[in-house]
Formats: sequence, structure tokens, C-alpha cells
Amino acid sequence: MSIITLTTDYGLKDHFAGILKGKLFSLLPEINIVDITHTIDKFNCLEASYLLSVSYAHFPKGTVHLVCVDASRNADTEHIVMLYDGHYFIGADNGIFGSLTNKRNAEKIVRISIHDRLINGSSDLDVFAMVATHLAKGGEMNVIGTPISEIKKMNVLVPIVEQNEKIIRGHVVYIDDFGNCVTNISKSLIDEIAKGREYIIRFSSHSIKKVKNNYSDFKNNTTADLNALAGNEIAIFNQDHFLEIAIYRSNPKRSGSAQTLLGLKIQDVVLVEFTN
Amino acid sequence: MSIITLTTDYGLKDHFAGILKGKLFSLLPEINIVDITHTIDKFNCLEASYLLSVSYAHFPKGTVHLVCVDASRNADTEHIVMLYDGHYFIGADNGIFGSLTNKRNAEKIVRISIHDRLINGSSDLDVFAMVATHLAKGGEMNVIGTPISEIKKMNVLVPIVEQNEKIIRGHVVYIDDFGNCVTNISKSLIDEIAKGREYIIRFSSHSIKKVKNNYSDFKNNTTADLNALAGNEIAIFNQDHFLEIAIYRSNPKRSGSAQTLLGLKIQDVVLVEFTN
Amino acid sequence: MSIITLTTDYGLKDHFAGILKGKLFSLLPEINIVDITHTIDKFNCLEASYLLSVSYAHFPKGTVHLVCVDASRNADTEHIVMLYDGHYFIGADNGIFGSLTNKRNAEKIVRISIHDRLINGSSDLDVFAMVATHLAKGGEMNVIGTPISEIKKMNVLVPIVEQNEKIIRGHVVYIDDFGNCVTNISKSLIDEIAKGREYIIRFSSHSIKKVKNNYSDFKNNTTADLNALAGNEIAIFNQDHFLEIAIYRSNPKRSGSAQTLLGLKIQDVVLVEFTN
Repeated sequence: MSIITLTTDYGLKDHFAGILKGKLFSLLPEINIVDITHTIDKFNCLEASYLLSVSYAHFPKGTVHLVCVDASRNADTEHIVMLYDGHYFIGADNGIFGSLTNKRNAEKIVRISIHDRLINGSSDLDVFAMVATHLAKGGEMNVIGTPISEIKKMNVLVPIVEQNEKIIRGHVVYIDDFGNCVTNISKSLIDEIAKGREYIIRFSSHSIKKVKNNYSDFKNNTTADLNALAGNEIAIFNQDHFLEIAIYRSNPKRSGSAQTLLGLKIQDVVLVEFTN
Repeated sequence: MSIITLTTDYGLKDHFAGILKGKLFSLLPEINIVDITHTIDKFNCLEASYLLSVSYAHFPKGTVHLVCVDASRNADTEHIVMLYDGHYFIGADNGIFGSLTNKRNAEKIVRISIHDRLINGSSDLDVFAMVATHLAKGGEMNVIGTPISEIKKMNVLVPIVEQNEKIIRGHVVYIDDFGNCVTNISKSLIDEIAKGREYIIRFSSHSIKKVKNNYSDFKNNTTADLNALAGNEIAIFNQDHFLEIAIYRSNPKRSGSAQTLLGLKIQDVVLVEFTN
Repeated sequence: MSIITLTTDYGLKDHFAGILKGKLFSLLPEINIVDITHTIDKFNCLEASYLLSVSYAHFPKGTVHLVCVDASRNADTEHIVMLYDGHYFIGADNGIFGSLTNKRNAEKIVRISIHDRLINGSSDLDVFAMVATHLAKGGEMNVIGTPISEIKKMNVLVPIVEQNEKIIRGHVVYIDDFGNCVTNISKSLIDEIAKGREYIIRFSSHSIKKVKNNYSDFKNNTTADLNALAGNEIAIFNQDHFLEIAIYRSNPKRSGSAQTLLGLKIQDVVLVEFTN
């Protein structure tokens, strides 16, 4: 069974995600629909593109990712389908997908042109449901639109290597529900620039000397060790292999989080400083 | 595969929606369950009936809609199943379904009478799960209860045509997660009364001259045009073809919404005033 | 089709639950995945174990329950699978499952030992997805780990019978989304100690004389009777057959709830006092 994922800013109160699923199952009952999230900050394409970029690869090739964030059509924003890394992405050409193609080229992109074939009163959701189920059934991209070669870019913060490779200057690009602050500095970038050198992480007035490889890095500690660590600031490579500033076992509602305790916010600078 | 939809006020913190799904899948593994919403304002039958009325038709005929809002049985509130417009609705006869039958007659209604056939310790959820899966399998309504002809009405606000068809007086009946204010004035009512006349939308001290046909009405504008429009009040026919007062691209958490910026709330009056 | 349930503290904003489902469907497309909840108070094993204990039995035997709360491995916290009452439970041995085995013995427990067989860069989610789908397909527990006989206990509050069976002293152990306060005093414990005697429920300065058998206990009342009851404090056996202190038809956002109106909180004492 094919998978269709949903990434929207519809929120959890309304019926919009529900009726989108109704339309999808009407057209193709034999699919698995997976909610990535429906609580994207409204019209925030940057947040949508971040979550999409760290989610899609956990699904099998051929999965259809439907993105309903700022998805209205206008004179210079078309609805598009992009085949990228073996996955299909459907949404508006508002820059969300451009942040993916910054990293590698899309295999194919088409501008959706079936809007006029639908009956009167059809909405964007009908267009998206029709395209998504067509692709989930193994349908051709050509049938639903015209190939295009260019899509809109998005201004995403990228880490900069400075001072003759003594510093990587990155930024907080996402703050998760635990209040952990994800940066745009990947482990592979650090490894490439480090060439074996030691490094220290700096942000505002803080510095952290050791980056944990992941939460399993604690697997040789005892529970007692770790309880003592609770509330401490740590730097870690998260499961998407990006540098993350966290408070160990933080509960934003009770004890506070990296975001609240360290005062970090989206776009704040985080430095990786090589020590020799 | 049949679809069963869920509309509840259970919230997202508890296990109630989860165990309802457990009961449904136990009885019939081969179904698609779709959440319409679980965050109906608690015991708010009016809100439930609104969301139900604008959701159900996006699902295929034969879909079973399970409504768990104020669903306890008492001496004059029975559990019922209603076949309406080709869809099955299950819940308590507390007026929620009466707001649907205001618009068209139900094909058939039965009072559920299987409660005593269930084993001791069974809950309302067991009754609903048994009835829902029975219908999803194509079972007969007669087997689960006794036909009845009357159900409870609900006092819903209806728009009134006034002053010899010079004014339609409607109300805000729902405020969505974007803070947009949905009225009970349908496009078809306006068209019927307008007979080609121009009209203006008025509420509190505001007036809007042009109603957009839908968000795709902006498709000939450029992104730059539309960015300039962000934060402006607009009137639009939403995807359910009701008049809606919105702030273009509003984010209630940041810039405010029609609800917060225009001070609109549920039941507030919205007028359609014909200009000649 | 097998069922895999998810109980996590991931929250609703992030992509973590979505990618977990992606991994599960990648390995086994023919399953039904059911969310129990994703909004467990972060790292709160006590809350997770409560919701798990009142949820699992509503699913068919053979269901796989995946619990991702405080699930990191360390020197003395292993990942385990437990077969208990015909259901599979997967998670960290952090006490969550020990609260189940307080009540009855597990049929079998294994320590998961496949971590090193996975490719580099695999996360705990990959381990859990692999184990969950293996079991959902009917796979053997032995293949994924080594049998163990002991797991960690959790300090859960248990009700105490005092003063020569004149009093049962219990506690509030969960407050649901309606603000209703669930105690750890079961109907069967009261029945066992009561031996036909009358009793009264006491907490802080309140007392309630009559315990409703469930919300259907109101089925001989009329709607008018019940509207008059709205806002009153009641004691009831909930659908899991535990004593619950509630405000009839409470809406925590508007009129208040047992939690807010009676000032009850987790761990507060509730007494059952036998009157002769």
C-alpha cells in the first residue's frame, strides 16, 4: 500500500485535515495516510520546509508528500509536483520545495494543469487529492501537468565557514516541542572541516566542550548518573545528524528547556570553534 | 474499504479516542478511520453539528460518522442511527442531528436498542463501536433498533431576509483555527435574493464591498500584490460556500485574526445589504 | 490486520510520531496504527503507565503497544519486550511496564539485543519499528533478545485499607482532559471491603454519599433533570471501573472542572468511609 503524508498548518480544531483524508480515501481506499504535522506555524513556509526535509527520507521511496501551507495559487505561484530523491512532493511553488533543491537536484518537476478539468465548486484540496492519489497509484507525472525546470528558491540560513576554517557560524533553525534548539550545522560539515581537530560549541555566553553523538551516547551511564545530568545543557547530534542544543530531559512546562533556560530563539547564532 | 469518521470532545491528552479505535478495529480490521476532530468545545453540540454539516459530504456515500459529544443516554435522550443523504450518523439524539434534518429529510432513523444485548460492563463506546462496524460492513439498520420518525431539533441561528429583500441578516456561527469567522449566509441564498443586484457586507462598524469567490480568486494576482494584501480584512465564500470574514493570511498567534482584530465572536450579526 | 499502538511524549508539533509511522509502514504496510496519545507529560513515566494500563485491554490480543517515553538506553535501562495478558509491550525498562506487572505476571520478557545488527546511523526508533513489525507479523520474541525474569518496579500509589476495614485511603492518580479526577480505588476493591455496607466518599472538605455506577446511571433521568445537575460534584465509577470525582458536564475552559473547582490535584487523598 502506498503512503501519502500530510504536512499542513490547518491546526487540530477544524475539519480541514479530516475532509482532505475523506477526499483521498474516496479516490483511493487502499492507502496509508500519515500525519507529519498539522500544527505548522500558520503560513510559515520555512518551518514547513524544515520539517519536510528531516521527515521524508524515513518513508519508503515512492511516498507522496502533500504540503498544504500557504498553498493558494496566484499569478506567479503555481501548484507543482516534484519528484525528488525518489519521493513525490505536492504543493504550491512558494519556496518550500526550493529549500530541498538547494541540496540536490529534483529528478522532475511539473506545473499542475488539471484545475480546469475539475467540476465547478472544486477546491485546491480536490486538485491535491486527485494528484496525490494518481501518483500513489503509480500514475505518470506528465498526465497532470507540464514539465518545468525552475522553481522558487527560499532564503534559508546556511552555515558559514569562517576565519580560515577556524569557525563554523550556524543558526538555530527549529525549536522542537521539548524546547530543544536544532541548528543548521550538520555532523558531516563539522567532520569535513574538523579534519580531526577538537572543537567547542559557543552561543550567547555559553560554551559546551563535548558533543554527544546521540542520546544513545549515554548508554554506558547508569540511571543515577543520568538523573544527576537532568537540567544540564548539552550539545548533541540529533537523529537527523544536526547539532542540537538541549537541556537533558527537559520538560518545557515544568523545569524549562534550552529555549527558555538559555534564551535561544530561531535564527540565533551558534558557533563551532576549532581549538587548534 | 469503508470509512468511519470520529467527531468528539475527548481532547488530545486522554486515551478515549485511542480505545474507541481499538474497539472498532477489533470488530472490523478492514476499515479506514478518519478523525474529523477531537477538540470540539466540551459538550458543545452546536459546534459539533456545524463541523459535521460541513464535513460529511466530502466522504463517499455509505461512510459512517460517529459523533461522541454529550452522548450519554437518559430518559429522553436515546442513542440513534440516522441515514441522511446516503451517510450514516451515530450518536445521541441531543439535537446535533436535528440541525442536519432542518435542511433535508433523513432517509431513515432508528433508536438503538442493543444495549441490553451487550455483556455486563460494556460502555457506550462498545455500543457505538458495534453499531458503526455493523453498518460499515453493510448491515441493516433494522437489526440494531426500532425505526422512529422524530428527532430533537436544535436552535440554530438562521439567516433572515428583511426589509423587502434589501437585507440578509446572518450571524457568525464558527470561528476556525485561523481566526476566520464563518457566517450562516450561503452563496446560494445571496444569489437567490440578489437577482443580479450589487451588495455590501456590513458588521459592527466595518463594511466590505467585494466578496471573493474563494481563495483561488486571487490567482491572477502576483505574490507581491498578495503580500501587500496581508493583514487586510476580506469577505470570501469559503470552500463550503458560506460567507466568511477573514484577515488575509492571518496568523492568530502573531499578527491577529478576524476574530481578534475585528472583535468578532460567535453569534455576532453580519449583514448583506443590497445597494439598489 | 495487526494493530500497533503508540504512546509517546513527542507532542503534536514535531515530526517524530510521523516518521515513526513511516518506519513502521515501510517495514509492514498492512497494519493499523492507533495513537493512544502523543501528549504524555514529558518524561512522565507514571502518566504513561496509567494510560497504558487503562487502554491496552480495549485492543485485541496480539496487539503491539509501543511506548516511547523516556526511552533512551543506558547502562541499567535496557530496551525490552514484554508479553503480558496476551499483548506485546515495547519500550525502555524504566518502570512503566513494572506498574503493569504489579497486578499480574508477564507471560514472557526479553531484553532487546538487535541494536548492533542495525546499520550505522540507526536510531532507537529504527529498533522499535523493527521489533514492533516483527511481532505484528507473528514473529518470535526469542529472535530479538534474551529472556529476562526481572524488570524495574515503579512506585505507584496503592490504596490502603485502614482502621479494621472502616476506611479505604486512595489517591488521585490521573486528571483527564475534562478535569475529572481519577483515583486508584477500583469498584472491585470497594465491593470486596464493603461486604454490603453503605459508604461515603470524602476528600478535602467535601463528601459525596452516592457513587454512580457509570454515566449511563443517569439514563432514567430526563434532560431537564440532568441540566439541573450540571456543575454539581459527583462520584462515579468510570469506564475502567475506578472511582472518579467529577463535575457533571464540566467544561474546564468555561465553567471549571473537578480539578479547578474542588482544588484536587494528582496524589491528593480520597477516602471511602464505610458507615457501619
